[in-house]
Amino acid sequence: MVRIGIVGYGNLAKGAECAIRQNEDMCLVAVFTRRDPNSVKILTPDVPVLPLEEAEQFVGKIDVMLLCGGSATDLPVLTPKMAKYFHVVDSFDTHAKIPQHFASVDERAKEGGKIAVISAGWDPGLFSLNRLYGTAVLPQGKDYTFWGKGVSQGHSDAVRRIHGVKDCRQYTIPVADAMDRVRAGENPTLTTREKHTRLCYVVAEEGADKDKIEEEIKTMPNYFADYDTTVVFISAEEMARDHAGLPHGGSVIRSGVTGWNGECRETIEYKLTLDSNPQFTSSVLVACARAVMKMANRGETGCKTLFDIPPADLSAMSQQELLATML
Amino acid sequence: MVRIGIVGYGNLAKGAECAIRQNEDMCLVAVFTRRDPNSVKILTPDVPVLPLEEAEQFVGKIDVMLLCGGSATDLPVLTPKMAKYFHVVDSFDTHAKIPQHFASVDERAKEGGKIAVISAGWDPGLFSLNRLYGTAVLPQGKDYTFWGKGVSQGHSDAVRRIHGVKDCRQYTIPVADAMDRVRAGENPTLTTREKHTRLCYVVAEEGADKDKIEEEIKTMPNYFADYDTTVVFISAEEMARDHAGLPHGGSVIRSGVTGWNGECRETIEYKLTLDSNPQFTSSVLVACARAVMKMANRGETGCKTLFDIPPADLSAMSQQELLATML
Repeated sequence: MVRIGIVGYGNLAKGAECAIRQNEDMCLVAVFTRRDPNSVKILTPDVPVLPLEEAEQFVGKIDVMLLCGGSATDLPVLTPKMAKYFHVVDSFDTHAKIPQHFASVDERAKEGGKIAVISAGWDPGLFSLNRLYGTAVLPQGKDYTFWGKGVSQGHSDAVRRIHGVKDCRQYTIPVADAMDRVRAGENPTLTTREKHTRLCYVVAEEGADKDKIEEEIKTMPNYFADYDTTVVFISAEEMARDHAGLPHGGSVIRSGVTGWNGECRETIEYKLTLDSNPQFTSSVLVACARAVMKMANRGETGCKTLFDIPPADLSAMSQQELLATML
Repeated sequence: MVRIGIVGYGNLAKGAECAIRQNEDMCLVAVFTRRDPNSVKILTPDVPVLPLEEAEQFVGKIDVMLLCGGSATDLPVLTPKMAKYFHVVDSFDTHAKIPQHFASVDERAKEGGKIAVISAGWDPGLFSLNRLYGTAVLPQGKDYTFWGKGVSQGHSDAVRRIHGVKDCRQYTIPVADAMDRVRAGENPTLTTREKHTRLCYVVAEEGADKDKIEEEIKTMPNYFADYDTTVVFISAEEMARDHAGLPHGGSVIRSGVTGWNGECRETIEYKLTLDSNPQFTSSVLVACARAVMKMANRGETGCKTLFDIPPADLSAMSQQELLATML
């Protein structure tokens, strides 16, 4: 049994709790939180919720800590700190800062003789794997990543900070025509605007200036200015009824050529359609926890990503089963 | 530079030759054949074509041998034999006999201190990887593999053996409705007939009994009896004009659930659309040759499959590049 601890209890942590339950070789030992532990009710019976400071007392009782915090401020501190005491898995997703995060986690994990898997999930994660496999197999080609249709929490939060906005759910939507051109092997050069559109469902405060809110959203730099954005005002009831979930997904497409003169076109598409982004992301984290134990048992230490993990390490099956049923 | 030898010079070997040319860190040293070497003209200038018996003289001059023979009789003998002298990669694709092939290759590779990668390609190969990753991430689910639309060489050959048949090209076609049901998360139980249909283009000999040929095809056990098969008679000119290529492809779909009570549906689809089955398959073999060298440089030996290869080993990029651009 892989003995797992979870740090945090937001959507991702709840997903991890559910995913652990689906895997017979895993058990949840404890959840650690910065909140008042008495205020946190978890789903698994008889598992304690404890203050984060008590985590280190679980050395020897927990094999792998799943770090379910945010990439902006939590994980850059938490992952290296914990990696000295436990094997850890995180979902650090600030793409530009991954090399820096890797280096700091690697140092501490090696000090502690532990394995740390960072940036697990689907992007970074399974999507990254497909960019790598696609590029390795079709070196003469181009890859495209499309996201959605799905809820972007970062964009939803950005809109919520606008004066007069009570709530927002922002959907990222891939442009169907652009995807069709990529699938057809055209290898187009696509601008940001040509790849995705953005759709915001907004609950405005009573008496708020809706025209002004719409204008502020559509011109917001980085988040919306480079996209065609649609703003739809709805009631709080509609928001609760129609937009409670966190669906997401997308496609990684590698379009390349083979043949002596590049005369054959080959297309690889990896597509996710997810009812729940956090549930799925945490399912990847939990599979990585299994891989961590196998790598540790071979005497490996330091920071890893899905790029470094032999796929068989993620599986609950033995090598014989894999050869006989999966290959 | 990875110094590569190719054994055989059929469609797969030609594909490997083209793929080596696309990779700057690879070079082709020699092609070995059982035919008269003077009768074999290859595409790469200044590379010798030699009798297979001379292969062993290239120990120390060739790092990795790509074994481009058939799974029925060639590879079960050739792969273990060569694995004692060279690192090897093959595309052994008789799924039921993979465990046995693995064991015999593993023994000889370890004797020689070499690495052997077997069953590389797309099925077995990239499709297998996606079955493994999908099952590891979504343990509560079901996976489906659909093949086509594409040419099955085995089925084409089977029809060619029928009396009165001059030529045949057999297309395997997935049933669109079945794929739609799987993509929608219905997790249906599908019979062989419900998953694929078969379409045969046949050139009959002059005066042949076409009704009899059609009947023989449609009732052929294993190959056609369990499928809805369509037979279309065409001229030799039409065959040459419209069916010269070897396109193929297909989808691996993992449909699973997450959430405490399985309330969220998550779908992963990996889809290949290939102008040329052998060109694409051999591109996977060539990427594996790179991985072989990295594994060998770490001191590993024995038989491996794509399940055992850390994805980064397949890539020409450094770890820093991968972290910065692919993750």
